[in-house]
Amino acid sequence: MPDLDTRYAIVRELPHLGYDAAVARTRELLAGEGFGVLTEIDVAATIKKKLGEDFRRYVILGACNPPLAHQAVTAEPFIGVLLPCNVVVMERDGGGSLIAAMKPTAAFDLVDNPAVAPLADEVESRLIRVLDRLAG
Amino acid sequence: MPDLDTRYAIVRELPHLGYDAAVARTRELLAGEGFGVLTEIDVAATIKKKLGEDFRRYVILGACNPPLAHQAVTAEPFIGVLLPCNVVVMERDGGGSLIAAMKPTAAFDLVDNPAVAPLADEVESRLIRVLDRLAG
Repeated sequence: MPDLDTRYAIVRELPHLGYDAAVARTRELLAGEGFGVLTEIDVAATIKKKLGEDFRRYVILGACNPPLAHQAVTAEPFIGVLLPCNVVVMERDGGGSLIAAMKPTAAFDLVDNPAVAPLADEVESRLIRVLDRLAG
Repeated sequence: MPDLDTRYAIVRELPHLGYDAAVARTRELLAGEGFGVLTEIDVAATIKKKLGEDFRRYVILGACNPPLAHQAVTAEPFIGVLLPCNVVVMERDGGGSLIAAMKPTAAFDLVDNPAVAPLADEVESRLIRVLDRLAG
C-alpha cells in the first residue's frame, strides 16, 4: 500500500475491510491502547439532516487517553482546543474503508511548550500502532 | 485586557462572567454565527471519573457550521481529523472564566489545499466575533 500520510494525518487504506467492521475494530484497537472514545460525529447523517445532501459514510471518533490528556491540559491549559485526538473512518472509493488519525506531533507543534512534545510523541506512537494493526 | 492569543488559540478573559453563564452565552453566540455544538466533553468530570482527581471546571464544545464543514470535507477528505472547531470554557483563577477557540487558520495551515484556506478564514472571523462579544 502506498503511504497516504499527509502533514496533519496518519492515513491507511483498508480495501478489504468494510466501513462498519472498520469502525468496530478501530474502537477495539483504540481501547487496547488506552483510548476511550469521548465523542462521535456521524458526518453523513449530519450533512443529510442539516443540508439535505448525500455524503459517503464518514465518522469522526474523538479518542482520549485520560492520563495523557490530564498531563496535557495541566501543562498547557488551552490545549483543549486541540483535543481529543480525532480518528476518522470513511467509505473508500472502490470498496472497503479508509482510516485517518490526527497527527498529534503536527497539531501540537503549534504549542510552544516543551512539556507537551513528549505527550504528542507518545499519543502518535499509539495511534500509528492502531492504524497499522487495522491495515496489517 | 491583554491579548492572550496563542499560535493555536484565540483567547479571551471574562473576569466578570461566571463559568455557567459563560457556557450558556457561548452556545447562544455560536448559534448566532451558524455553529451547532455537535460534541461536548466535560473535562473535569472525565478526569474525576477516570483518574479520581479534581480539576477546574472545563468544557470542550465542538462547534460546526454545516455548510462550511461540508465544503471542507468535500475539498479535503481527511480534514475531519481537525474538525469540529473546538471552543473551550474554563474557570479562571481569581474569578470569572476564560474562553479559548481553535484558530482554524493555524490548524488548517497544515493542510496544503488552496480550497481550504478561505474556509478557515471565514470560520476564524466568526469565532473571533463570538469571543469578542463575550468579552465586550
